[in-house]
Formats: sequence, structure tokens, C-alpha cells
Amino acid sequence: MTIHTMPAAVLTLDDLLTHWQGHRGLTRRVIEAFPEDALFSFTAAPPMRSFGELAWELQGLTDYCLKGLAQNDWSWQPPQEPDPKDRSALLTAWDAQTPRLAQALPLADPEWLMRKQEMAWGQLSPLETLLYAIDNENHHRGQGYVYLRALGIEPPAFYER
Amino acid sequence: MTIHTMPAAVLTLDDLLTHWQGHRGLTRRVIEAFPEDALFSFTAAPPMRSFGELAWELQGLTDYCLKGLAQNDWSWQPPQEPDPKDRSALLTAWDAQTPRLAQALPLADPEWLMRKQEMAWGQLSPLETLLYAIDNENHHRGQGYVYLRALGIEPPAFYER
Repeated sequence: MTIHTMPAAVLTLDDLLTHWQGHRGLTRRVIEAFPEDALFSFTAAPPMRSFGELAWELQGLTDYCLKGLAQNDWSWQPPQEPDPKDRSALLTAWDAQTPRLAQALPLADPEWLMRKQEMAWGQLSPLETLLYAIDNENHHRGQGYVYLRALGIEPPAFYER
Repeated sequence: MTIHTMPAAVLTLDDLLTHWQGHRGLTRRVIEAFPEDALFSFTAAPPMRSFGELAWELQGLTDYCLKGLAQNDWSWQPPQEPDPKDRSALLTAWDAQTPRLAQALPLADPEWLMRKQEMAWGQLSPLETLLYAIDNENHHRGQGYVYLRALGIEPPAFYER
């Protein structure tokens, strides 16, 4: 039995991790669904970025969350060098985050996660920041679905995680 | 002080409501950003549906969630008649859901919300179903951003809720 002073809440850290990793797995399948040459060159609506560039943004935002979870450091450092236009480099970086997230998130203190603090984008709780990163991934992945359809490719099923 | 036997969780019902309504407000602005004639006719990647048709799907899924929250009835009834290809009808239906959600969600029992049961799409908790509806909205709204860009229209800022 847990005794605490926090308001009743409904999402456990295990559930949040499963939810997040499920989204990340789906995004990985979308990255894989693109033809190699289209991943970093095609856009369905200029001036939108290619899906490969969007996916590197998602990878960077997950890195930001991992740094915040590990060190409570929420300063934003934009990438120093352009990301490689290379699917295998992207997938290697993506997969390296998976066990790090699985290790870091269950160790987070729930009260700390829910407490607002100064972030790169204003007063937010770590939880709000993580949910924003997940939402941003979902948002851009939905755009990747349009790119795939415009290329005549059936995207992975959205409901499969 | 709350004493209960649930595992520590991080998302309160108030936070979930704010999160959901924020997404719904953004989707409403995307609906409004389309030219009237394009909302139900344009697609950036055939055979994808128009954004108006996608938005009616989102409205239907929110109705499904509202019925589940009110009656614990998670059976799925597909729409009996085609949705009107009319923005004002869509926005009226959208806005009618806003106070219903605001009333229903804070009354939900957290333990019930987290308990899996038989749903139209398998063994899910009500919470998982609500999060799926929010994810599905985010996913399709991201597609609406591509449609707007393809029409040469600047979409609303994603981070404004």
C-alpha cells in the first residue's frame, strides 16, 4: 500500500514507458518503410522537411528527455553538426535510446516528474516535456504517413505498437 | 492525504483533461484554417480522405469515449448516415463535446479507468482507449498540417494549446 499526498493519478511510469516505446517502435517501422533514396529527399509539401530530417528531430528530442531524466538538465543545445542523411546511422541512434529510456524512466521520482520547473520552453514539468516529445513524434509520424501514401506505399498499421 | 493501493502514477485526471482539451482546441484551429471548399474535397495523397472526413472520425471517437465514460458501454456503433460535408456542422458537434468532456472526465474513478476490460478493439483499459483517441487525433491532425502546407497555408503552431 502506498501512502502519499499526491492527487490520484492514472498513468504509471511502466504504462508511460510502454506507451512511449510503442510509439517509438511504430516510428521505427515508418522510417524503414521509406525507400532509401526518398527518406532524406522526398517531401509531400515543400517547404516541409523530408521524413528522415523529421525523424532526426524526434531522435534529438528524445536525447533531450534522456538528459533531463538523468541529470535534471533541461537546457537545449541545438545539434552542432548536420545529421547524416543515412538511414542506418539514424536507426543505430534510435535503437541506442531504447534501453536508455527503459532504464531511466522507471527510476524517475513521480513527484519530481509532476513538478513544474524552468525548461528550455518555459515553466513545464518533466512529465509535460516527455508528453510533448511523444506528441511531437506522433504529429510528425502522421506526416510521414502522408509522404508514404504520396509515394504509393502502404504505411504500417497505426494501431499496432 | 490519499491512501490507496494503486501504484504511483503521474498523470492526474485534471492534467489529462487539460492535455486532451488542448489537443482538441488545436485540431479545431486546423479545421478552421482550411478554405471552406478544400476541407471536404482536398487530399495531399489519394486515396487518403479529406481533412474534414478525418475530423469527423475524430469527433466520432470522442463520442465513443464520452459514451464509455458515462455508461461504461464500449461497444462500437459505426455512423448510421454519412457525416455532412459542412464545416459549421462539424464545429457545432465538436464544440458540443467540450463541456461534456470537462464534466465527465474528472468524475471517472481512477481504478476503473486503469482496469482492462473487453472493448470494441480488444482488452484495454478505459485510459488506454482515451489515450488512443488522443493519439489518433494527433496523428490525423499532423496529416492535416501536410494538407495545409500543400495548399500553401501556414498551419497553426503545434506547441500552442
